[in-house]
Amino acid sequence: MKMLSIREIQQGLARGEFSASELARQTLGNIEQKNPSINAFTELTPSRMQEEAAAVDRRHSGGETLPPLAGVPYAVKNLFDIEGVTTLAGAELFSDAPAATADAFAIRQLNKAGATLAGALNMDAYAYGFTTENSYYGATRNPRDLSRVAGGSSGGSAAAVAAGLVNFTLGTDTNGSIRVPASLCGVLGLKPTFGRLSRSGSQPFVASLDHIGPLARSADDLALVYDMLQGADNTDRFQSARPVEPVANKLTNPGGLRCAVLGGFFETWCDSAAKNAVATAARALEAEESITLPEAELARSAAFLLTAAEGGNHYLPALRAQASRFELNSRERLLAGAMTPSAWYTQAQRFRAWFRDQTLPLFDQFDVLIAPATPGCASLIGQQTMKINGTDLPVKASMGMLTQPISFLGLPVVTVPLPTTSGLPIGVQLIAAPWREDHCLQAARLLELQGIVDVKVN
Amino acid sequence: MKMLSIREIQQGLARGEFSASELARQTLGNIEQKNPSINAFTELTPSRMQEEAAAVDRRHSGGETLPPLAGVPYAVKNLFDIEGVTTLAGAELFSDAPAATADAFAIRQLNKAGATLAGALNMDAYAYGFTTENSYYGATRNPRDLSRVAGGSSGGSAAAVAAGLVNFTLGTDTNGSIRVPASLCGVLGLKPTFGRLSRSGSQPFVASLDHIGPLARSADDLALVYDMLQGADNTDRFQSARPVEPVANKLTNPGGLRCAVLGGFFETWCDSAAKNAVATAARALEAEESITLPEAELARSAAFLLTAAEGGNHYLPALRAQASRFELNSRERLLAGAMTPSAWYTQAQRFRAWFRDQTLPLFDQFDVLIAPATPGCASLIGQQTMKINGTDLPVKASMGMLTQPISFLGLPVVTVPLPTTSGLPIGVQLIAAPWREDHCLQAARLLELQGIVDVKVN
Repeated sequence: MKMLSIREIQQGLARGEFSASELARQTLGNIEQKNPSINAFTELTPSRMQEEAAAVDRRHSGGETLPPLAGVPYAVKNLFDIEGVTTLAGAELFSDAPAATADAFAIRQLNKAGATLAGALNMDAYAYGFTTENSYYGATRNPRDLSRVAGGSSGGSAAAVAAGLVNFTLGTDTNGSIRVPASLCGVLGLKPTFGRLSRSGSQPFVASLDHIGPLARSADDLALVYDMLQGADNTDRFQSARPVEPVANKLTNPGGLRCAVLGGFFETWCDSAAKNAVATAARALEAEESITLPEAELARSAAFLLTAAEGGNHYLPALRAQASRFELNSRERLLAGAMTPSAWYTQAQRFRAWFRDQTLPLFDQFDVLIAPATPGCASLIGQQTMKINGTDLPVKASMGMLTQPISFLGLPVVTVPLPTTSGLPIGVQLIAAPWREDHCLQAARLLELQGIVDVKVN
Repeated sequence: MKMLSIREIQQGLARGEFSASELARQTLGNIEQKNPSINAFTELTPSRMQEEAAAVDRRHSGGETLPPLAGVPYAVKNLFDIEGVTTLAGAELFSDAPAATADAFAIRQLNKAGATLAGALNMDAYAYGFTTENSYYGATRNPRDLSRVAGGSSGGSAAAVAAGLVNFTLGTDTNGSIRVPASLCGVLGLKPTFGRLSRSGSQPFVASLDHIGPLARSADDLALVYDMLQGADNTDRFQSARPVEPVANKLTNPGGLRCAVLGGFFETWCDSAAKNAVATAARALEAEESITLPEAELARSAAFLLTAAEGGNHYLPALRAQASRFELNSRERLLAGAMTPSAWYTQAQRFRAWFRDQTLPLFDQFDVLIAPATPGCASLIGQQTMKINGTDLPVKASMGMLTQPISFLGLPVVTVPLPTTSGLPIGVQLIAAPWREDHCLQAARLLELQGIVDVKVN
């Protein structure tokens, strides 16, 4: 089955080469065949998908101009509310919860744009993890090597795109949960600026760090989806009052970006595969300087503190009532997080403000900063540690060590996969100033134009 | 000495009836005579005041049009940085600290507007208190009855205005520290919307609750000062990006305000003097309805939690290094605050968002809400408890119980003193929607026009 881009779907539908219903049928058949070996989906919504596709086809037959994502198959991390489906957030705790009574804001936006929903995707429980080795719903396997993890927490979202099951997916990113699986599975992911997209109707984890964003197989697909996700929604009080700023139209002739490489912490804590990928991207983007974020390691610690404290507060009532239903890897850290002294929490937020003040002036000089997305390529399922910088690091906690300081700053990032000598892909983060998603996407497009991006559908 | 309004000073100077230097001399003489019995000032800045006054007089002789506050004597709570003066923040801890090397942002604004600075004013240590019974710098006495407290924490700021020592002062308000002393001393105070005025160069206490604002003897004086305090300053990251919105020009013909009384918690926890004052203000403002804020008592608890946690975090390094220098009433609560579980802190912030969502829609129906500023009139110095609603309440903690829920919401408030049968004044809070300082000030002006405001200079 040929993998179509969103623009190819737009053209194919417009020319009558295929119908949305045919796309939906093919998609569902393909998922049925391939998903069992990958375990990307936890729930399929075939009737809904077929109805949405039929509605697109009716509009087309009626002579309407179709919206930008008409007939485009997608799926969402299972922490987004889908009307009529139980929102699992990867947790056994929610397995018997009532079905959601309405779609999440992002799904409503995509529905208006004509996209067709295939189902809900696997993730780390509570979005608290970087490997999607889910102890209740099973591990999601990496389509590039089924013995390896897909990364997390949006592991199902990355794997579904990498396996060609859908054209794009939605994930969420608190400390790296879009960028880590995108890196390990070899797809592109966009974590927009904190406060850009409404999170309403998604299960929260850390209100002051949670972002939603798309994963796809090209910068253009990412941009087309991202443009449809933008929009004001006064029910997410962390959303900024920004106008919609479309970016897809800015990718036709990218260039003129001033780029630099992030050194220090980001250079130290990765293996040679990651270093080579960054060097390749730097050459392609003519990034000659290397700059250092002050105290990036402290930023990571502070992000951990905020995560444990806010996540712990969020789940405290459930921990009190039903502790035995909690994922073992998370129960103790959520409880401990809730009980950390509040002085630690406020100090972490205070440091965050300081760190932003130190970092944002860098964007007077540079439009895009380049850093590895993960310390190395995908680890094996069950692997406990990985050797980085001569040190055995715990895989589950460390796969996000290079993404954490960036989401802590709320900066927009696109991660783009590059090839490595092992045959596995590895992602490179393209980081821009707040609200400059266009810069990240233009840099990603430049890498694609130079033919160095490693997106393969197996 | 006749008490002049700011507009009378503007006119007097313009007509050459007196000079700024004469005003400064009179002011300093008056302070020298009256301050010892009140203890409002902790430091005088006579040379600076005379130089600032002389500069105003030179500009006037040179034919310049003088700025709005030219020659107007003022003083500031001693947590504002004054170049060359040690910033005490009411604390023995800072008594031997080096002098500030620059003025606070607010003082720079007032300096540009021509005001002349008489000195720094007494307060509760760290701004953590409601009575200004300062154990190191001494209690500030209430000019209306020297045996009584001035209220706090901006006690010196209220007393200096009530005693006619200066025309206006700056205070700060975290849980009520402008409104409580204004109520007890019988002056007006404005706590603007959270984020409206820059706090840069003032000693922080609780970053997510601290406000700065003016105290004065009339709504017009308050408005004229407030207009000069407005202005963008990117060094206070909690300041909102709002344009300057002058209000003094909106007080000439006030009216048409839809007003209501706050019942429930605000009606229960005050004595008959406070109830009568609210009833008088309600009649004057034609407020017929009484409305209730849901969970106002919880709002007070949450404000206490945020205060202890952020204040505790702020002072933790000093508590570790020099615990013995801390004010005894605050040492344990700051330490305890720093050690509260972070889940309590995040829950309090979460509740705050909920409470705002519940409360802000009230302003679709009403422009101004009326509530007492304090549960009763000024207590005696040394008095431990007061009887309110049949309950013995601790004075130090409870004087702010009716102001705390309002600053927790970040709403703008003007407090206006009304007379009581005891001869002591009591303040009424006039509360408006975010960014509608004009509504609070117009309501205050309406009360003045009806002759029911009890501002007396003793």
